[in-house]
Amino acid sequence: MSTLGLLAQTPHRARDLGVPFDGTPGQFNAITDVPGVAVGHTTLISGEGKLQRGVGPVRTGVTAVLPRGAGNSTPVFGGYFSQNGNGEMTGTAWLEESGFAESPILITNTHSVGLVRDAVIKWQLSEADKGHRTMPLWSLPIVAETWDGFLNDINGFHVKEEHVFAALTGARTGPVQEGSVGGGTGMICYGFKGGIGTSSRRLPAPSGAFTVGVLVQCNCGRRPQLLIAGVPVGKEIPGQVPYASNLSPTGTELGSIIILVATDAPLLPNQLKRLAHRATMGLARTGSVSGNGSGDLFLAFSTANESTAVQDVGAAPKDAKMLPNEAMDPLFEATVQATEEAIVNAMVASDTMTGIDSRTVIGLPKDQLVKVLQKYNRIAH
Amino acid sequence: MSTLGLLAQTPHRARDLGVPFDGTPGQFNAITDVPGVAVGHTTLISGEGKLQRGVGPVRTGVTAVLPRGAGNSTPVFGGYFSQNGNGEMTGTAWLEESGFAESPILITNTHSVGLVRDAVIKWQLSEADKGHRTMPLWSLPIVAETWDGFLNDINGFHVKEEHVFAALTGARTGPVQEGSVGGGTGMICYGFKGGIGTSSRRLPAPSGAFTVGVLVQCNCGRRPQLLIAGVPVGKEIPGQVPYASNLSPTGTELGSIIILVATDAPLLPNQLKRLAHRATMGLARTGSVSGNGSGDLFLAFSTANESTAVQDVGAAPKDAKMLPNEAMDPLFEATVQATEEAIVNAMVASDTMTGIDSRTVIGLPKDQLVKVLQKYNRIAH
Amino acid sequence: MSTLGLLAQTPHRARDLGVPFDGTPGQFNAITDVPGVAVGHTTLISGEGKLQRGVGPVRTGVTAVLPRGAGNSTPVFGGYFSQNGNGEMTGTAWLEESGFAESPILITNTHSVGLVRDAVIKWQLSEADKGHRTMPLWSLPIVAETWDGFLNDINGFHVKEEHVFAALTGARTGPVQEGSVGGGTGMICYGFKGGIGTSSRRLPAPSGAFTVGVLVQCNCGRRPQLLIAGVPVGKEIPGQVPYASNLSPTGTELGSIIILVATDAPLLPNQLKRLAHRATMGLARTGSVSGNGSGDLFLAFSTANESTAVQDVGAAPKDAKMLPNEAMDPLFEATVQATEEAIVNAMVASDTMTGIDSRTVIGLPKDQLVKVLQKYNRIAH
Amino acid sequence: MSTLGLLAQTPHRARDLGVPFDGTPGQFNAITDVPGVAVGHTTLISGEGKLQRGVGPVRTGVTAVLPRGAGNSTPVFGGYFSQNGNGEMTGTAWLEESGFAESPILITNTHSVGLVRDAVIKWQLSEADKGHRTMPLWSLPIVAETWDGFLNDINGFHVKEEHVFAALTGARTGPVQEGSVGGGTGMICYGFKGGIGTSSRRLPAPSGAFTVGVLVQCNCGRRPQLLIAGVPVGKEIPGQVPYASNLSPTGTELGSIIILVATDAPLLPNQLKRLAHRATMGLARTGSVSGNGSGDLFLAFSTANESTAVQDVGAAPKDAKMLPNEAMDPLFEATVQATEEAIVNAMVASDTMTGIDSRTVIGLPKDQLVKVLQKYNRIAH
Repeated sequence: MSTLGLLAQTPHRARDLGVPFDGTPGQFNAITDVPGVAVGHTTLISGEGKLQRGVGPVRTGVTAVLPRGAGNSTPVFGGYFSQNGNGEMTGTAWLEESGFAESPILITNTHSVGLVRDAVIKWQLSEADKGHRTMPLWSLPIVAETWDGFLNDINGFHVKEEHVFAALTGARTGPVQEGSVGGGTGMICYGFKGGIGTSSRRLPAPSGAFTVGVLVQCNCGRRPQLLIAGVPVGKEIPGQVPYASNLSPTGTELGSIIILVATDAPLLPNQLKRLAHRATMGLARTGSVSGNGSGDLFLAFSTANESTAVQDVGAAPKDAKMLPNEAMDPLFEATVQATEEAIVNAMVASDTMTGIDSRTVIGLPKDQLVKVLQKYNRIAH
Repeated sequence: MSTLGLLAQTPHRARDLGVPFDGTPGQFNAITDVPGVAVGHTTLISGEGKLQRGVGPVRTGVTAVLPRGAGNSTPVFGGYFSQNGNGEMTGTAWLEESGFAESPILITNTHSVGLVRDAVIKWQLSEADKGHRTMPLWSLPIVAETWDGFLNDINGFHVKEEHVFAALTGARTGPVQEGSVGGGTGMICYGFKGGIGTSSRRLPAPSGAFTVGVLVQCNCGRRPQLLIAGVPVGKEIPGQVPYASNLSPTGTELGSIIILVATDAPLLPNQLKRLAHRATMGLARTGSVSGNGSGDLFLAFSTANESTAVQDVGAAPKDAKMLPNEAMDPLFEATVQATEEAIVNAMVASDTMTGIDSRTVIGLPKDQLVKVLQKYNRIAH
Repeated sequence: MSTLGLLAQTPHRARDLGVPFDGTPGQFNAITDVPGVAVGHTTLISGEGKLQRGVGPVRTGVTAVLPRGAGNSTPVFGGYFSQNGNGEMTGTAWLEESGFAESPILITNTHSVGLVRDAVIKWQLSEADKGHRTMPLWSLPIVAETWDGFLNDINGFHVKEEHVFAALTGARTGPVQEGSVGGGTGMICYGFKGGIGTSSRRLPAPSGAFTVGVLVQCNCGRRPQLLIAGVPVGKEIPGQVPYASNLSPTGTELGSIIILVATDAPLLPNQLKRLAHRATMGLARTGSVSGNGSGDLFLAFSTANESTAVQDVGAAPKDAKMLPNEAMDPLFEATVQATEEAIVNAMVASDTMTGIDSRTVIGLPKDQLVKVLQKYNRIAH
Repeated sequence: MSTLGLLAQTPHRARDLGVPFDGTPGQFNAITDVPGVAVGHTTLISGEGKLQRGVGPVRTGVTAVLPRGAGNSTPVFGGYFSQNGNGEMTGTAWLEESGFAESPILITNTHSVGLVRDAVIKWQLSEADKGHRTMPLWSLPIVAETWDGFLNDINGFHVKEEHVFAALTGARTGPVQEGSVGGGTGMICYGFKGGIGTSSRRLPAPSGAFTVGVLVQCNCGRRPQLLIAGVPVGKEIPGQVPYASNLSPTGTELGSIIILVATDAPLLPNQLKRLAHRATMGLARTGSVSGNGSGDLFLAFSTANESTAVQDVGAAPKDAKMLPNEAMDPLFEATVQATEEAIVNAMVASDTMTGIDSRTVIGLPKDQLVKVLQKYNRIAH
């Protein structure tokens, strides 16, 4: 029933098509370019035809981001921002208060957040039983979501604990599978098939040679809003828009987007919140206005300061590194650029999908995209 | 195994013992004095002796607060405040954004938040299947927690969907069971047995004759901090403090407190956030300093403006009522007073309990409390 | 020395040049399309050549926005958002707390905020002395700023009380003067001369026929970042960038942008904060990444619910209107669109200016702008 | 006309009278026990009898807190919290954003905030002219206020630039003058004469031997609310309550309180915000409910990490120290305790004052206070 973490060949990414982006990506052009960050997907696809609650069709999954990779449960400094809170990200009260993200970060569908959240605790217990980590007295996992109920039997609650364990255990550094995988399996982005997308930027040496990586679960936007490289692609490719009138008679947006920003720059919690604020700006460049129905929740973390974040018994002050605020502009720019590219990557990587009640969402037609960019003289050479 | 919603006789409440409080309570001196508010508990108590993960002993449960009572799923205006975010309250991103609490509000133990959260969605689906309510496309339930792992097999995940359904279905207006019940079953408050407590204030007619009701799940504080009616009760009753050194070598606080404030005064969302801010002040009067480990999360809601909150198709402006800010002082005072009294009620209603590994937490000794209050000339006549 | 509120002929606005924008503006394509809103400028331009602190050259001023126009001091519901807080907007603590903007909103240079703030109180006293309004016991005026020290003798403190009174008294409904006027006199926007810009959107009847108006004091961005209608105009017009290396050796942004969003839609304070969040998205479309040095502070207010906002003695609940959250998407879109256009308007309206030490900032060359838009096939027909 | 910074003999402080407080104060029991912190007052008292706007009587002033003392303009890490935002504290947008308090912190009356704010910039320029500090391109000073219009000709704007300079220049380490001095000159606290109060706590060595110092400008509360050491002092001393019915017919609170928390513990900005949250709890212990009219604005800063805060050209990461969150409980407790004591100190130090229109506010009668504490067996031995 499920394809667990298989890394399929990724034939196309946005910049391969000639979409022009600013800045220089890292090796994989992925969140995993930040050393240590690992990503795992569990993709659940089964069934066709008419919706039977609890049976299917199933088009969903779960994605896990481990800030320091498998086997390293040391927290990371983190910051959070809600651009439009029509969504859920558990664990943010403590993230805001403490400045730390203490758990892996999971993304799934809206109605499976609770299952995934408790399953993370069970996985932490299981890891502790194996001696791989210390289990704290309590855990407040970070789990976010977007809504896949247009294609997926979301009220069938198909994500199970084993799927969460698989995403966590299968997390890897290196290339990241994009598109209709993991938590992004059943998602829709600007009226095209969406899902998981990622990108990164590597700063030049005078700016510290830091890396910023972004991973999105993109489920937001309406077709006419879509901008790619500033070009009104959505208006130029108007056909086959999903969302039947019975779902959203007023044309209201039904989507959401979760944006995770990772960096190895030594930023303090309040500085990471600043990074999270810039995710809005990358999103805005793709045309979204953060519709009322959109849960646009962003989290930024830094893998630096590992020894500061180790939770031990001592109460003595610890050493930390802090990048001056005055040196953050290149990180802001990198966040905006990588967010924009990750969103476009999510669409480019997603093929047409048919889900419940035979509803179909088309993949962004790559040939048309190229033609539209050419029309506006915005194709990279 | 469980005692579902049985309303046991409540022999003692704080003011019956002569603890002096300001202000005038409503009929039940409970959150249910706000017309419509219903409360249900599922209490899970089973097993004795040595902890066996997954088996017990079990000392936990779940409490449900339905702002408009059973059978009325219309949202309420709400506001949220995190005084110290070492805890979880799901659903707050949308509460903050929209100004509405759209679901019942549940409280349980830390590691069961996810189960309870998804179970609320299943209950909403079940109610919709019966035609009792309309199921929205997605739901973002509000579920909070405190940690009961000193007495309860918290890593045994004993709260199940049926327990959530029972708390929701069993919710009633009228008197509210306090102490070691529902989500409060295994809780500890200032080193005494704690749990659920409630209180209310009724404003005089010139202040609008509004009611403010508070319900707490009290699991916070250390013994020496406890103040009751301003008297240093904790220092005067120093014995039998729980929390063995192996759990908290530095004496760090391990608890939390969830405070729900209800009112029928017509307050807008930003005004309800103001009410939530005052919960801190009631808590402070009982001696807490919101220790690092304490998840002190507060939610205030208003049952007024029901027709404004009905979610229908139309996009036309709706009528609402708004109490002027200049008239809020009596509500602030009522919130502080009722919060203080609800916390003391939680302790007074809780008897000594023995849980995992035969750990015992004593109930606040009522005779000693009276003597201490007499010593400080602070007994009500 | 000063040109007080003279409404010069505005030869060019962005859409007159063929810049394509979405949505339908109101009559004046200005914040004043929201009925009642009045705008006044005091522009201070004097001196040339070498900077003499306290003497000049002077390139500064003050802009006043009166939400309900002259002679109506009834507060408005308001919401605030800081996208990047390297700036000042006084009065926001009470705006956030109360949900009301109780004073006119003034914008000036960074070092004159205090003078302007107290002068507003003096003007309120003066108006009360004349019987035009009731003076409250205390006043907490809303005054924001951006930094004009590249062109202006900012440490000369040239804004005086009389200039504040003139801006307030001279405020008018109808067309709004843009560019190097009022608080915007000495500002720089994406390396071109910036200042005040405005725009509006009128929603169609099915969306409530509401108006959204935006006014910006634009002083933000670096040249290579500038996007207009998605086109990389800044990179295409690279010459004559101001900011000598002695001011910003690292190329750090030195600017800021204040964005005011007005509407007649009946939004509650928490909904107006949502509108303020969308100003970020309009700003992002013009290329900014909210650099560290940029004070990007946004305020949204609604002129609806006037009778709710009247401050009288009574403590009885008042009637209000509230637009459902589900109907806000068109307002979000209008805010993003009008913000983007207001920023471009600020640049189009600003001619080349020379200030202290003979520093010159060029106006956006309109012929080149048109050519660049043509190159990218983005000129409106 | 003014008594500039004279340190009068302070005959009484609360603990000298036998008021019991927890914890151990530092040498001066003042904010200046945090090494480096300096405090200066300018007190303006002149005139008697009938109010003549612009003439007097004058009962006001300005207080300056220099986090690193005179001659050291290096910023400090800081955090801000608004418990009830009916007040002004300029500079908080940047404090929140950057995590730094970059200017001295000034407190004055409500209508002089603007004057004081710009005067700080002028003082910074003056200091830079003397070579004592580097003037940044722009400055966003931190200035807060409470309302002294019951006793003072607040609309006469009697605070002038020279008074601000005097408070800054006169700032000293060592003992701090309390009561009707500086910004606190005309203030009223729980219906008694209030003003400036201060206190400190020194942590034991196992908790790091850090110091927490608090300074308040106390102008809040109504008489019946006042608690001292948990005792209902306000109800026991009911007479001679100020606030004639013409000022506040509904008995609404007209006051405010500014609370500054200083520490030498190495806390990051997000941790300092946590400290600011605890100021609420100290305030609550004295009986306040943060009335609608009260501007309860709190700022916490740390003098540690000085080299981290130096603003230089380099963009390289800097070293910082961070106290683990798990070690913060003693700091929380110290903040609550010192805040409570500082408020009581403000009242104890303030003698009866007569101001405009011959209005009189009595000082807290010390003999009655002692008797009331004795009645409740709460006098320290």
